[in-house]
This record gives sequence, structure tokens and C-alpha cells, in this order.
Amino acid sequence: MNLSCFTRLFNLRIITVFSLTFPIIMLNALNTIHKQWLYSRHPQGVVGTDHYTMQEQVLDAGLDRDEVLIEARYISVDPYMRINQSAKPTYNPQPHPLNTVQAGGVVGQVLASRTDKLQAGDWVFGMTGWQTHARVHFSDLTKIDPELAPVSTALGVLGMPGRTAWFGLTEAGKPHAGEVVVVSGAAGAVGSLVVQFAKRHGARVLGIAGGAAKCAWLTEKLNADWAIDYRNFSDAETLSTEIQRLTGGVDVYFDNVGGLVTDAVIPLIKRRARIVICGQISQYNGGLDNPEMGPRLLHHMLYQRATMQGILARDYLHRMDEMLPIVAAWVKTGELVFEETFIDGFEQLPHALNSLFTGEHRGKLIVRI
Amino acid sequence: MNLSCFTRLFNLRIITVFSLTFPIIMLNALNTIHKQWLYSRHPQGVVGTDHYTMQEQVLDAGLDRDEVLIEARYISVDPYMRINQSAKPTYNPQPHPLNTVQAGGVVGQVLASRTDKLQAGDWVFGMTGWQTHARVHFSDLTKIDPELAPVSTALGVLGMPGRTAWFGLTEAGKPHAGEVVVVSGAAGAVGSLVVQFAKRHGARVLGIAGGAAKCAWLTEKLNADWAIDYRNFSDAETLSTEIQRLTGGVDVYFDNVGGLVTDAVIPLIKRRARIVICGQISQYNGGLDNPEMGPRLLHHMLYQRATMQGILARDYLHRMDEMLPIVAAWVKTGELVFEETFIDGFEQLPHALNSLFTGEHRGKLIVRI
Repeated sequence: MNLSCFTRLFNLRIITVFSLTFPIIMLNALNTIHKQWLYSRHPQGVVGTDHYTMQEQVLDAGLDRDEVLIEARYISVDPYMRINQSAKPTYNPQPHPLNTVQAGGVVGQVLASRTDKLQAGDWVFGMTGWQTHARVHFSDLTKIDPELAPVSTALGVLGMPGRTAWFGLTEAGKPHAGEVVVVSGAAGAVGSLVVQFAKRHGARVLGIAGGAAKCAWLTEKLNADWAIDYRNFSDAETLSTEIQRLTGGVDVYFDNVGGLVTDAVIPLIKRRARIVICGQISQYNGGLDNPEMGPRLLHHMLYQRATMQGILARDYLHRMDEMLPIVAAWVKTGELVFEETFIDGFEQLPHALNSLFTGEHRGKLIVRI
Repeated sequence: MNLSCFTRLFNLRIITVFSLTFPIIMLNALNTIHKQWLYSRHPQGVVGTDHYTMQEQVLDAGLDRDEVLIEARYISVDPYMRINQSAKPTYNPQPHPLNTVQAGGVVGQVLASRTDKLQAGDWVFGMTGWQTHARVHFSDLTKIDPELAPVSTALGVLGMPGRTAWFGLTEAGKPHAGEVVVVSGAAGAVGSLVVQFAKRHGARVLGIAGGAAKCAWLTEKLNADWAIDYRNFSDAETLSTEIQRLTGGVDVYFDNVGGLVTDAVIPLIKRRARIVICGQISQYNGGLDNPEMGPRLLHHMLYQRATMQGILARDYLHRMDEMLPIVAAWVKTGELVFEETFIDGFEQLPHALNSLFTGEHRGKLIVRI
């Protein structure tokens, strides 16, 4: 960390004074280590350290025109990463290729630049994956304004999870004031925002999460009307009874988890309910390759003339200019809770990914380099 | 039949010459028998004769102002009847009450009338249920034009099944020219129309049905591009492989059956696919009360950003004026196949309902009185 800090400061000065190629030579001379986590083995069940291999090499910092060298400072771990490790086609036709850098979102700083669009020291977001450094065309990066909000929010409330929550709820969920919105995975990166966005739409909100601490956080900090710890229920029927008792029926179900929780909610949908399939995390540890069995519930769609829609963040990427003025203002004033849980150290990435499926974190989980 | 024909002709004359109350006295004097099938026992599995009780009485033909006496000529049997026999809430909050006349659609003729809106002899449609006669307020009846099409089509292509097929496909399925539309239960009252409507939208259509005869009918008479007899497949995987081989993937899935066929189709949906849940007939013989287990497949909704929508005919009742000019024209010219299978005899109603779930009929099944 000290070495890279020094390198960064050094480059800043060099770029100003000398040519654009000189600092690259300096970087090489300093023998900066470029670390990468390669996705190296297909997981049958839960993904973790067994499925990644660390690779280290001296940084090759050569840049072509319009390219930028960035150093990663915050690296994202997200449930979708496990989807794309499925052996079957998922949202991408092919699984994540083996023995390549794990794909993912990164917030970093520019170390060197051969474009006037970005300067050394600038904060950027890019899909540069699990590596300490990356050489990228400037057009693949988004500049971050560190005055707007903490830069790490580009991986959370002002990035992919925020976009998923905002457009998933508004475009597919379409909540109305007075309606009941149920959110599964409600303490997660997306769910915790959906709870708050739904409240702002005037809905009454039930958050479903695992553990008493998360549930207390949902009602005390996120202003959810109700919270249920699904771990207190051994079957869908008793969970369903409790959801019905609290809410009286469900207008919008924003589903991040699938499985037993969804089995409990679907029989409670009301006329013209909207079900948003945002995630099915309970099924990611093997269930995508070999589907788990569950009760057939599609007849409820018919009874209630309900709509179910699957959503992906990528479909709304070009519409961030609609969301950011609204949500960034709430972030700036502090009226939106956007909890970030940091795990320190590049070496922790596989463990951090694993803990998405087993851990106790709240909000957005980020590895800090 | 002869007696009631005589009664009808007799009334026609009486109404013209005398007061409106006189023909009622005449009917009673003729001791017309009023038969009713009461739904008398909740079925655990397949519904049939065990669950109905015949009741006969002398017709009480008293009419208040604005009321009409009708004689049933064609009585509908539909899969939805079994849904509402489920012990759990379905599309109606309460199950069909026991020991009441089985609800259902009827095409009949006016025997006597105390409104100038309808004359004796007029053909009408009404939800008067499984009974030979019914006393109804005129506003609960729809007059049928026998010149437009065979009057029985008010129970089929120009009635509830036609409306379900038309609006289900156009409003929820939204097929585009060149897309692949897959229809389950494709030889049924709704499915056989969806196949033809989808062809008219320029789609390539796969019909899935049970038995070689139905499949031959789909391709030879209904112009389906492909037909698959699902009975030739013992599991969803092999059926899925065959659907994929024929179609290359599914843009619209119009589902009448659920269960194994739906398990085979859902993994094949393409980007932005639309799934129309119109029926789940494979689940009606017990599966609504005690859901069958099947593979969890909602993750495919996410991958493909697909939409699933449950539909019911009642939601489009007020929009028949949009459909009828188009579809009735196709019926009149004969370019639309609207096969009707008749079972003769009021006594056959419970058996006819049963045969919806077990039988070999094509198109719309109707009991002719």
C-alpha cells in the first residue's frame, strides 16, 4: 500500500512535467506487483477460496493512446458472480471462463493516463475485475466525483445495486402509495435500498432477512413497517401465515432470494400483484445447475392476474441520469441509509464472495485494497 | 325436447296476443320439468359424476318485470370449473358452494319475457349454470345473432375461450412476426385458437398436445409449424431438447397446462420472453390444494428479463367489441378453425366435465340439450 501510494504521488508529478510515456518506465522500474485472482475451478456448491488462484507478476504498465492505468481501491463482490459460474447458460450464454481474472466492478484511481479525459489521481469506476491494476481504454471507465459521495458508493447505492433497486422497483414493481411491498434479502445491498425506496413511494414495507440483528436494523434504521427473520420458520406454510398476519396480502414482491421465502409469499399475492425477480440467491449454490424441487405455484399468477418480471441491472445502465439526481441527493443529505461493510485486503476477495452466501454483513459488501 | 319446443312456440303467440303474465300460467300447467345439476361433493382428485347430484322439479315460471325465462340449449364445461372446486381461495375468494347449481356459461332460447329487450325465441348467452331452465334479469343476458355464426360459438370462439385466447395472446403474449410462440394444451378450446391467432401475427408456432391425432390436426388443419405429442416424453429434459431442436428457443409461451410441459419450456425462453399463464390444467386434480413438487425455474426469468402474466377472461369482458369484428369475420368466412365437440344430453354434464381432463376431444367441448 505504501509503495503504491508513493507510486501514485510520484506519477502525478511526472505526468505534469514530462512526456506521457516516461512515468510508465518509472512504474516498471519500481517493480510494482500486479496481483490477480483467477477464477480457476467450477464450484459445485458454495463458492470460496478453493475456486480461485492468486497470480502475481511485475506490472507491465505500457499504455497505448487513449489508455489509462488504474489502481484498484475498492473491489466489489456480488451474488451475480456465482450465477455466471453455473455450468448452464445463465444471463450470459457462456459461463465465466476458467483461468481468467474474476470479472467484477472496481473503484480505482488513475495512476497514468494517455488521454486528456482522465488525469492521474482521478477516481474511476470500471469492470476491471479482481486485480490490483488494470490497463483500460478510457471509454470503459466512468469518472467519479468524490465530492458527490464516498467513492465506494459507485459499487453500491450509486452503482449497480442502487440501479437494480431503483429501476427494479419503479419499472417492474410499480409500487403505489398504501400498497404492501415485501422484500426478500431485505438487509442486502439491493434489498436494503428497495425497502427505503418503497417507503418513499408511500408503501407499507415488510423486509424479510436472516437473523434478529438484521431485522432490528430493518425496522429501526431503514424504517420498514415490519421485519421477519425467516430463520425462525422451518417451513413455508408457517412463514406464509406470519406474512399474512402482518401484511394482509402482498401487492409487490421484490424477490432477491427465491426458495422457501418465495414459496411463502406467492400464495399471498393480491389482485394485479407485481413480482420482481431480482435474485434467487438461495439457489445459487448448485440449484442453477441441478434445480431444487419446490411447490408448483404458477396457478396463483392466474388467480390474481399477477405479473412477474425478471430484471438485470445492465438493462438500465443507460438510464443512470434518471436515477442519480434523485438518489445522490438522498445520499448527500444522509436521509438514505447506504450501509457498506468493508473487508480489508486484496487477498480476502474469495472469502468475501463466499461470505455473501453465509455471512452476517448488512448492505453492500466491498473489499478494500 | 318436443314438449319444450311446443311450449316455446305456444308462448311466442301468447305473448303477442295476451298479457305478459298469462304464458307463465300456461307453462306451469304444462308441468315442464326443471332439471338442475347440483355441485354436491368436493373432489380430491379428478372431478366427475360422483361430485354432482341431479335435482328435478316442476318449473316455477313466475317472472317479475324485466325478467326472462330461458331454456338451455348448449351448456359449457370448462377447466376453470375445477379450479373453483379447490378448497383454497383461487380466482374467487370462496370455493363453489356445495349443493348449488354448478355455475357455467349457457346458450339458450327465451321461453317467456317481461321485457321488451328480449322476445320469446331469441337466442341468448348467460351464466345460468347447469340447469335446463333459468329465470334471469334481462341485463344478465347477452343477445346472440344467429346469422353471425352458429349460436354455440358464444361458448367458444366468440365467447369466453375466444376472448381468453385473443386478449391473452395480444395483451400479455404480444407476439411479433418471426417470433416463436409455443402453446401448451394446443388442441383445446383456447389453445387451438391461440395457435391460429399467433400464425396470423406472423409468428412461427409450436403446438404441444397429447396424442398423435391432435398433433396431426394442429399441423394439418390449424397450420401450426410444429406439433409435439408430450406423451412421447417421460421427462422434461428430453421434451425440452426436442422443443429446442425444433424452435431454437421460445419468445412467447402460452401455457394452458403447467407441470412437466412448462418445466420443459421455461429453460428455453429467450431474451424478453413473455409467458402467459392462462391455465394449469395438469394441476387441477388435487394440485391446487396440495401443490405438486417441480423444479425451481424462476432464475430463468432473471437471466432473460422475461415477463410472466396470469390472465383471466373476465378482465376482457368489456372489450369484446374490440375482438368480435375481427374474429367473427374469420369465423364467417370459415378461415378460422373452431372445432366444437358435442356431447348430447343434459344428463352427461358431469361426465363431460370429467372428460376435459381425460378425454380426446378437440376444440371446444359442449353439452347439447
